[in-house]
Amino acid sequence: MSEPWPTGVTEIQPNRVAVRGYDIASLMGGVSFGSAVYLILLGELPDEKTGRLMDAILVSSIDHGATPPSALAARTVASTGATLSASVAAGIMSINRRHGGAIESCARTLGSVVALHRTGMTMDEAAAHVLEDLQAAGERMPGFGHRVHTDDPRTSRLFELAAAAGVDADGKAHIGAARAVERAFAAKGKALPINVDGALGAILSELGFPPEVMNGLFMIARTPGLVAHVSEEQTRMKPMRKIDPTNHVYDGPRGRTAPGA
Amino acid sequence: MSEPWPTGVTEIQPNRVAVRGYDIASLMGGVSFGSAVYLILLGELPDEKTGRLMDAILVSSIDHGATPPSALAARTVASTGATLSASVAAGIMSINRRHGGAIESCARTLGSVVALHRTGMTMDEAAAHVLEDLQAAGERMPGFGHRVHTDDPRTSRLFELAAAAGVDADGKAHIGAARAVERAFAAKGKALPINVDGALGAILSELGFPPEVMNGLFMIARTPGLVAHVSEEQTRMKPMRKIDPTNHVYDGPRGRTAPGA
Amino acid sequence: MSEPWPTGVTEIQPNRVAVRGYDIASLMGGVSFGSAVYLILLGELPDEKTGRLMDAILVSSIDHGATPPSALAARTVASTGATLSASVAAGIMSINRRHGGAIESCARTLGSVVALHRTGMTMDEAAAHVLEDLQAAGERMPGFGHRVHTDDPRTSRLFELAAAAGVDADGKAHIGAARAVERAFAAKGKALPINVDGALGAILSELGFPPEVMNGLFMIARTPGLVAHVSEEQTRMKPMRKIDPTNHVYDGPRGRTAPGA
Amino acid sequence: MSEPWPTGVTEIQPNRVAVRGYDIASLMGGVSFGSAVYLILLGELPDEKTGRLMDAILVSSIDHGATPPSALAARTVASTGATLSASVAAGIMSINRRHGGAIESCARTLGSVVALHRTGMTMDEAAAHVLEDLQAAGERMPGFGHRVHTDDPRTSRLFELAAAAGVDADGKAHIGAARAVERAFAAKGKALPINVDGALGAILSELGFPPEVMNGLFMIARTPGLVAHVSEEQTRMKPMRKIDPTNHVYDGPRGRTAPGA
Repeated sequence: MSEPWPTGVTEIQPNRVAVRGYDIASLMGGVSFGSAVYLILLGELPDEKTGRLMDAILVSSIDHGATPPSALAARTVASTGATLSASVAAGIMSINRRHGGAIESCARTLGSVVALHRTGMTMDEAAAHVLEDLQAAGERMPGFGHRVHTDDPRTSRLFELAAAAGVDADGKAHIGAARAVERAFAAKGKALPINVDGALGAILSELGFPPEVMNGLFMIARTPGLVAHVSEEQTRMKPMRKIDPTNHVYDGPRGRTAPGA
Repeated sequence: MSEPWPTGVTEIQPNRVAVRGYDIASLMGGVSFGSAVYLILLGELPDEKTGRLMDAILVSSIDHGATPPSALAARTVASTGATLSASVAAGIMSINRRHGGAIESCARTLGSVVALHRTGMTMDEAAAHVLEDLQAAGERMPGFGHRVHTDDPRTSRLFELAAAAGVDADGKAHIGAARAVERAFAAKGKALPINVDGALGAILSELGFPPEVMNGLFMIARTPGLVAHVSEEQTRMKPMRKIDPTNHVYDGPRGRTAPGA
Repeated sequence: MSEPWPTGVTEIQPNRVAVRGYDIASLMGGVSFGSAVYLILLGELPDEKTGRLMDAILVSSIDHGATPPSALAARTVASTGATLSASVAAGIMSINRRHGGAIESCARTLGSVVALHRTGMTMDEAAAHVLEDLQAAGERMPGFGHRVHTDDPRTSRLFELAAAAGVDADGKAHIGAARAVERAFAAKGKALPINVDGALGAILSELGFPPEVMNGLFMIARTPGLVAHVSEEQTRMKPMRKIDPTNHVYDGPRGRTAPGA
Repeated sequence: MSEPWPTGVTEIQPNRVAVRGYDIASLMGGVSFGSAVYLILLGELPDEKTGRLMDAILVSSIDHGATPPSALAARTVASTGATLSASVAAGIMSINRRHGGAIESCARTLGSVVALHRTGMTMDEAAAHVLEDLQAAGERMPGFGHRVHTDDPRTSRLFELAAAAGVDADGKAHIGAARAVERAFAAKGKALPINVDGALGAILSELGFPPEVMNGLFMIARTPGLVAHVSEEQTRMKPMRKIDPTNHVYDGPRGRTAPGA
């Protein structure tokens, strides 16, 4: 018999399931799902404010309508008579560099700004430097500007909640770097505000998530949206229809207000 | 130009994303991810107690170690050099009738017990009747008994939290039916307690989830676990290793206690 | 150490790979890929004529342009920056009851016609009987009629090649049944000719393929088309484009003639 | 209405399907599936010898038993009750850099050898040069040596058939480069013969396939094997079994001889 291989995620014993060392039954009812996601990916339970921020981060990306390729791929597969799980999987497979991936790319670039800042540059100098490098390489800064949203309310809400949780309070790290990039664009006369991907990249970096896991957080957040789209496709639409990627209309309720909001 | 096709999930407008009619920015920080999952799948925001129950439900299924086929499929694909999203998708594709599906199957069977009860039988008579039908068809009752856990702490915790949220308080519906099935087994001398799948099937039925969506809830809950397993495989294990499905050992921290627990 | 589990597909030994008992090196150059597909799925090498028919069957389904959901799902996933394998996999996942599945459904229905015929009915009586049953159940006969092709040249070519291979020469089995169904429709004044799926269902049944494997043959045949579509998407199209499912135009060469044709 | 987007793969018209300009009905019975694969990927019909070589290439990779991760992933997903298409897709998703990808990697490296040779070095000098570069970068030469097969009969058969088809007859290109690499290893006292992946990389390069499509050819070749494994899992094995990746035994027929061989 060969050596057993190691895993540090979850321990299974008779009548006990422990995630990263915490009895799962004690987590149930005690922590939010956002906190549990933080725990399973980073190995530690977050404090309550950070847990609430995690929930807000996941809520921010729960869905973006029927246009993203993940929703379209999931619906296309569903329309052939596929199972729920195969259809949702096709949606997950669409979360890559071009879809969801701006979070990770932005985090890496902000990481370069922070690293330069830590060598002695001001944050604004560091941001300008990194933008010049990108421009020289013919690349765009990921996480800034948006095709649909010029002033995405999710972005300001994320920064508000991050501030409430005490994340990057003095602006010396990733959120400060993101603000410096925004200023650097403005100095060139470009209105390229941080978008929701940029905000997520900055905040998740600050929370300690490695860039290569960030797309995983986007998958976690988006799975409910994919389940909802596939479920709607299966119950409401004809099989094998031609799914136009843009020509659709929302016909659900409008203008509802959350009780506590 | 053909007619636009309808969707009732999420409305996208410039600077506004609204899920089932609620501005997503107002949900962020206001509701937990569990509540948002309830909203996107059922179309209504749950009350706070139900929202907390939803979080507990998702936490209960966040991971079950390296043995389930979803973790093994995800790790096997990851070991070939696949992307995070393709690897996680392979895990999602493994959530089917035999893995995760007991929640849905149990919900359907408990639904039959409740339906009989509503025609005038006592719940115990209804449970006995349905078990006889299953036996006659050579089928097993899904959601009762477990290979590893004889007294799964997740199960009692789920019922406790459901009771706190006032779910099926008088035992006249799915949870009552699950208890009646347990009694019917006991009456035959069989110790087949409700397992975590059975508890989820009963509680989700009571919350109004249609059985065909329950596997979707399991996918939502398990995606963080899959991301964690793939991430561990990518960073800690050698590529193209032969992944033994049982011969592994947990080497993470042990015996930690959640602050509020 | 537990018992080894059995497999009858391929034996691997040092310096020897044997598929269903045949040294793969001796098959290379000796048999066509169509023959090898027959061998690996049915366990026997076909005679030369049947091997040629197998190749023709695979060629018939190698691609059907950019409109089928398998091509669209593969292209949609590819447009997000996915790998070739994840994109092709999304296409494969789209081959289900509604796409490709008519081959299997038709084979099962023709199987019912043949079974009735063998109890003593004429083939025409059996076909009429089965069509009545379908109509009573509110179902359509799969494998007959087509949205685009009223007289699909692939269909007649398949039957021609099947006849050349001596398949169902006396019309007493699945091909005969398919012809009887066609006559039964004609008798009702409906022009619903056998389509390419119907022809495949009839011929593959006659070759001994079980219906549940037929969708697998369609996957085998279509994988090259999926690779070609993904490759074109990756090299020729912009990432994250909105892929209209119908509004595309063929811009390759036209009117070429195969040397031997 | 926006501009239609272009595709050069297949033209669909009523009663006509044309792949790269060739009527598919005229290809059926006229060319082997290997020739059709060449056509759909490279845009031209191969001559007959090359068509036969294409079939041999596909046959060489049709299966490699139950141990490769593609077979294991497909079986693991199948064991959960997944459909045939979802299970096969999980296998396809496993074909990446580490599994199948040596064909592409080897082709790229042999391409470097050929490029150096064309600048004036002898092939042996070019091979030695490239191997030194790899060694300096701490990388291994892909496509040489094998864990199981020291003298893989598929390799010599592939070169034999390539020679018969007149591929790289004077050894001035990729096959010549592969031989030079073998000699360079031998000169260092290392017995690292070209393996089947290396032979495929050399021959496919010579046939004009771009390296980034080679993994696609491996997917095309392996799909029948995946269908066979999934089919065996679905019909012969218990659901949700723990699939040991190595502890299995071949129990099919042995020692059969192909008629023409």
